[in-house]
Amino acid sequence: MNIAILFGGSSYEHEISIVSAITMKKVLQKSTLTYIFVDANRAFYLVDTEKINSKLFSSGEYRKGKQLTLKKGGFFSEGMFGSKKVEFDVVLNLIHGRDGEDGKIAALMTFFDVPFISPRLEASALSYNKLYTKFLAQSLGVKTVKYEYLSKNDERKITMDYPVIIKPVRLGSSIGVSIVKDASELDYALDVAFEFDTDVIIEPFIEGVKEYNQAGCLTDTWELSIIEEPHKEEFLDFEKKYMDFSRDSQVLAAEIAGDLKEKIQDVFKKIYDPLFRGSIIRCDFFIVEGEVLLNEINPIPGSMANYLFEDFEGMLGRLSRHLPKEKNIPIEYQYIHTIQRAKGKA
Amino acid sequence: MNIAILFGGSSYEHEISIVSAITMKKVLQKSTLTYIFVDANRAFYLVDTEKINSKLFSSGEYRKGKQLTLKKGGFFSEGMFGSKKVEFDVVLNLIHGRDGEDGKIAALMTFFDVPFISPRLEASALSYNKLYTKFLAQSLGVKTVKYEYLSKNDERKITMDYPVIIKPVRLGSSIGVSIVKDASELDYALDVAFEFDTDVIIEPFIEGVKEYNQAGCLTDTWELSIIEEPHKEEFLDFEKKYMDFSRDSQVLAAEIAGDLKEKIQDVFKKIYDPLFRGSIIRCDFFIVEGEVLLNEINPIPGSMANYLFEDFEGMLGRLSRHLPKEKNIPIEYQYIHTIQRAKGKA
Repeated sequence: MNIAILFGGSSYEHEISIVSAITMKKVLQKSTLTYIFVDANRAFYLVDTEKINSKLFSSGEYRKGKQLTLKKGGFFSEGMFGSKKVEFDVVLNLIHGRDGEDGKIAALMTFFDVPFISPRLEASALSYNKLYTKFLAQSLGVKTVKYEYLSKNDERKITMDYPVIIKPVRLGSSIGVSIVKDASELDYALDVAFEFDTDVIIEPFIEGVKEYNQAGCLTDTWELSIIEEPHKEEFLDFEKKYMDFSRDSQVLAAEIAGDLKEKIQDVFKKIYDPLFRGSIIRCDFFIVEGEVLLNEINPIPGSMANYLFEDFEGMLGRLSRHLPKEKNIPIEYQYIHTIQRAKGKA
Repeated sequence: MNIAILFGGSSYEHEISIVSAITMKKVLQKSTLTYIFVDANRAFYLVDTEKINSKLFSSGEYRKGKQLTLKKGGFFSEGMFGSKKVEFDVVLNLIHGRDGEDGKIAALMTFFDVPFISPRLEASALSYNKLYTKFLAQSLGVKTVKYEYLSKNDERKITMDYPVIIKPVRLGSSIGVSIVKDASELDYALDVAFEFDTDVIIEPFIEGVKEYNQAGCLTDTWELSIIEEPHKEEFLDFEKKYMDFSRDSQVLAAEIAGDLKEKIQDVFKKIYDPLFRGSIIRCDFFIVEGEVLLNEINPIPGSMANYLFEDFEGMLGRLSRHLPKEKNIPIEYQYIHTIQRAKGKA
């Protein structure tokens, strides 16, 4: 299979997207990879798979490659003898953060009818925004950590007990996130978060909470990953996450009781189907008093959480044969024809 | 001002978008209009403003015009001597229903940095889906009519008293909507709704409920329309709505007590700001026991609700100077540089 890896983007996570993309070369050894880079200016470039390395991007040398145009059916390079289509079977959207996770790339791929692995527009808009993720969970009967919500111009008042964790609603990879131990630290943490976003959510910070990650997708059957218990400090900061995005070898499953495992898998399936069809997502859960609480949905997890799957490469192939399709809307101009006939008779 | 009217789209409302677009020619007489048509196949065509009429589209004759490509900064026509940009100041997104209201056009315009009047991606995704609109209202403390929700594969059971109104969650213009008077009619109404969508919401049908429409936008100040009391039968069917989309002359304001007017305007502002900045929307409210309930948000109302404003054309100009801008994200490759330096030393 020929997989087009779409990466980069106008995002705070531009660089970790490059790391994720390069990691795919180690992970997807049986496939042909076609690399399409979205630069900071949102221009598309074809990148030579043989030559890909991080310096190609930081040096600007990628610009020597072919620039591509997105049109009906795919990406095209324009030359002396017209337009030439870049050949591949499916796009793997690996743009973390803005553009990739907020629904823009999903919209572009859907509009121009390019088959792609990634959450669709609605799923992206809801999971990219942590407040909307709460609404989504609520509508599905999935429990979450309790929260409060503040906009940039709101009075900076919270009613929750400290310590709390402050998160910009629209960013991933812990950018702009702070743990606030008492009221004296609140202002500074909000200043930091509002540097990155207009809205934040505030949640209780639960020291030593049990956390489990479950990834998966739906092909002709459920393909669920092992459940991982992430080993981490207070929380991963950006540089540690950065290294985390280059993981390429399988990890061990968490030791976990059978009924809890089943509960986690059930909640995952409830969230995934049908909204996230066509994507591989990772859900991060907290276990509090035996209950499974959704902490976060990672719509495009670091290096696609490949290290949690036994047959990641095979799964990509199966998923590419089970992508959701937009309903075809026939346009027959029946109303305009009716009006024209009526006018003709008048 | 040169306004590019973007219309058509792969939508059940393709034809009424054409009606809305043609109506703009009567409404916007002081502006230069540039018509860009999105055909059923989602190809972009430049349409001669002088020659525009509904037959041009139903006959397929529009294909004789220039086909356009969307690239950074705008729409381009490709010719013998390279690429030529179509000149305009702002796009007015007039695509009703799918593509225009679901966030795809917003995503395309934002990604390719084309200034446009329309709800942005998040606002579109939330208002296009009637279930998500309920979530949004809830988060803002705005009351709505109570509801139940069914997916295609759910058991067809409702707990609400009849009569009820069944609506596909993702469509406008009353497509697929039925009033159900008793349990014997439920199955058929659901069959109809599920023809068009995978999800429906069910609300009590309130006979003779007072309904008021408020449109508006935020420029350097609030520009709110008169409040209209729509005169209608049970509800507008598709053909009546179709005619409704060609309205071009001002209507009379509803006779309404000052405090109710103020309540409606306050709720409108709460919904609009900041999520809908950059757009002109119309909110339809029900008044039940003196309370203002949000019925629907029309993110791209028929003929832009021009008939509710005194100076619609001037407002477009002012709004085009107050469009929200995406935050610029500087990409400096600091992490990649750090890693490269560390490798160089090792």
